[in-house]
Amino acid sequence: MADKREIALQKHKEWQGKIEVVTRAPIDNKEELAVAYTPGVAEPCLEIEKDESLAYEYTRKGNLVAVITDGTAVLGLGDIGPSAGMPVMEGKCALFKRFAGIDAFPICVDSKDPKVIIDTIVNISKSFGGINLEDISAPRCFEIERELIERCDIPVFHDDQHGTAIIASAALLNAVKFTGRQDKMGQMKIVISGAGAAGISIARLLNQIGFGDVILCGRHGAIYQGAETNDPEQERMTAETNRNNVKGSLADVIKGADIFVGVSKAGVLTQDMVRSMAKDPIVFAMANPVPEIMPNLAVEAGAAVVGTGRSDFPNQVNNVLAFPGIFRGLLDVRASRVTDSMKEAAARALASVIPEEELRADYVLPDAFNPKVVEIVAKAVSDEAVRLGLNRK
Amino acid sequence: MADKREIALQKHKEWQGKIEVVTRAPIDNKEELAVAYTPGVAEPCLEIEKDESLAYEYTRKGNLVAVITDGTAVLGLGDIGPSAGMPVMEGKCALFKRFAGIDAFPICVDSKDPKVIIDTIVNISKSFGGINLEDISAPRCFEIERELIERCDIPVFHDDQHGTAIIASAALLNAVKFTGRQDKMGQMKIVISGAGAAGISIARLLNQIGFGDVILCGRHGAIYQGAETNDPEQERMTAETNRNNVKGSLADVIKGADIFVGVSKAGVLTQDMVRSMAKDPIVFAMANPVPEIMPNLAVEAGAAVVGTGRSDFPNQVNNVLAFPGIFRGLLDVRASRVTDSMKEAAARALASVIPEEELRADYVLPDAFNPKVVEIVAKAVSDEAVRLGLNRK
Repeated sequence: MADKREIALQKHKEWQGKIEVVTRAPIDNKEELAVAYTPGVAEPCLEIEKDESLAYEYTRKGNLVAVITDGTAVLGLGDIGPSAGMPVMEGKCALFKRFAGIDAFPICVDSKDPKVIIDTIVNISKSFGGINLEDISAPRCFEIERELIERCDIPVFHDDQHGTAIIASAALLNAVKFTGRQDKMGQMKIVISGAGAAGISIARLLNQIGFGDVILCGRHGAIYQGAETNDPEQERMTAETNRNNVKGSLADVIKGADIFVGVSKAGVLTQDMVRSMAKDPIVFAMANPVPEIMPNLAVEAGAAVVGTGRSDFPNQVNNVLAFPGIFRGLLDVRASRVTDSMKEAAARALASVIPEEELRADYVLPDAFNPKVVEIVAKAVSDEAVRLGLNRK
Repeated sequence: MADKREIALQKHKEWQGKIEVVTRAPIDNKEELAVAYTPGVAEPCLEIEKDESLAYEYTRKGNLVAVITDGTAVLGLGDIGPSAGMPVMEGKCALFKRFAGIDAFPICVDSKDPKVIIDTIVNISKSFGGINLEDISAPRCFEIERELIERCDIPVFHDDQHGTAIIASAALLNAVKFTGRQDKMGQMKIVISGAGAAGISIARLLNQIGFGDVILCGRHGAIYQGAETNDPEQERMTAETNRNNVKGSLADVIKGADIFVGVSKAGVLTQDMVRSMAKDPIVFAMANPVPEIMPNLAVEAGAAVVGTGRSDFPNQVNNVLAFPGIFRGLLDVRASRVTDSMKEAAARALASVIPEEELRADYVLPDAFNPKVVEIVAKAVSDEAVRLGLNRK
């Protein structure tokens, strides 16, 4: 590990940043200068002043995403602050370019006050075609995203919530198909360990897609209506999860469940718990770096399909499978917002990248470097935006 | 002109933005992904968390400048708004890259309230190594720059003020040298037509450099202490300009002046006024696109050296002569701020690019594409930052 640590530091020092801003306009003589800058530049300015939508024609807006954090929930490192979060944001921007040809620019907001963060982002939002929120801690991230969606006329997407939800949902769609239960999706019982941003977003999207009863489990056990320990977002979720309002620990509620989804912490799922689940259980244990249960133990306890968040195990829920295609699709049609139905479309599209006959227990998610992923996800998102009339192109 | 308009629009449409964000890290397989992104990226994050100055080592901060406007004073177009100002900001960013290898990113703030603009910029400032304010109207630009300098730990530089001032000062230094008056600089009388952001900044820098008595002229004539029509910034300037507190029109105060500097509007300087100036007057008429006096008329009336803001006349005060080198110098030593003495150093350095024996009436400023310009200006700024102990490298 010390070696890997040294390599990571050395490479980052060599790169001096993982992104770079380059020019697309030649400026090698006075004539070119006079077109790209003054006086020529006045012409597109005047056109945009007359019709603001022309910013998509004459500036980079249409291919530009802001990757914004406040540094409060960076990777598994927690609240390390805006400057320390920057290497992750730059990395994310590099991935946007590598996987979807999108220009992404990292911005760290130096405040933890949701109101300040919201105002700051709204104030600079016209410079961009979309906003990717990143590594903002719950429950602040819900309020921040909700108000930004209200106030911005471009898509705002908190990847830690929805990216994870889309990929996990795609994996579950394929796992259900592989285990021959697609007709019973509506009757399934799903338990999600982790009732923060990711867990809540996964629950929402599974509901949107039509999975059965979803039970969220936090550190105090199942989230039920009126529990004293609920935060406002958890209480809100009781309206659409845990239909029978059951109480109890993870060990209690996991009994008879078809699907376990972990976005919590190492080791919380035991083999006995897996054995207590329904036949052919599906287990996605995505805690990083150590999953809720190690894949070999889950398989040994009878799990039919197992996935994690790690690249060294099969079925990796890797966020690079979702955000590049989603933003590509949004930008391609100049979408004004991203909806739950677009997230569902993205999940279904991502699942569809693997033909049914190729599905295996250890292959329900495509490889991150499969070039079809971005293309198929982008098209599904674009199509849904057009269907809803939220496109501007 | 219609043709040039069409070319400018056509080119801007082809470019689809004049900047692009690219990746500096290879991400072509899982191993590379694991270094540039998770889990490897955690290492530089943790290092920066321990020591924030390492952001200069592990992220792009050290080569990154934000070009920020509110769109209120874009070129000569006025208040066209943040979206319409973007082509100019992108152009500026392209020039930063082309002339100084600096990564510059354009941000338009969607507010006209100085407090909102200041807070927004402060909140995102940690993502950058420097801030170039652009096309913000006076007198708001003074307050905005002043408070940002107080609150940010990186250099903040309003180019419309100081870039113009530095280049005009360099031109005047060379014009004075060319006309053999360098020993009389302190006794000179300088009249500046235009008492907005650029005029005030030029007056400040000429004082800093040691030119004689500077008189600012606004639309109501000479700016003198206690004039009812003074705005707060103009009143503040009366402490360091117009030593004899003279009143009167431009035609009145120009009599006997050695130097005229125009940052006002077309045609305000007549041939008779030039004839009323001291012997061998120096005239820089920088109103765009039509100068305060056309160069041929100024020469005919006896001006010894004439310059404008236009590329089709000699001695162009072109802002590309200053900001690339200034920010290159600031970033090279990780300066925490930019001082008046650095601006003076930049002006003297820019003037020095032309050897004394090569100075001519129509050659007191170097060509914008002369590669020595950035190099020499950058070194002067770096050296002065180090001398003042404002460097962090």
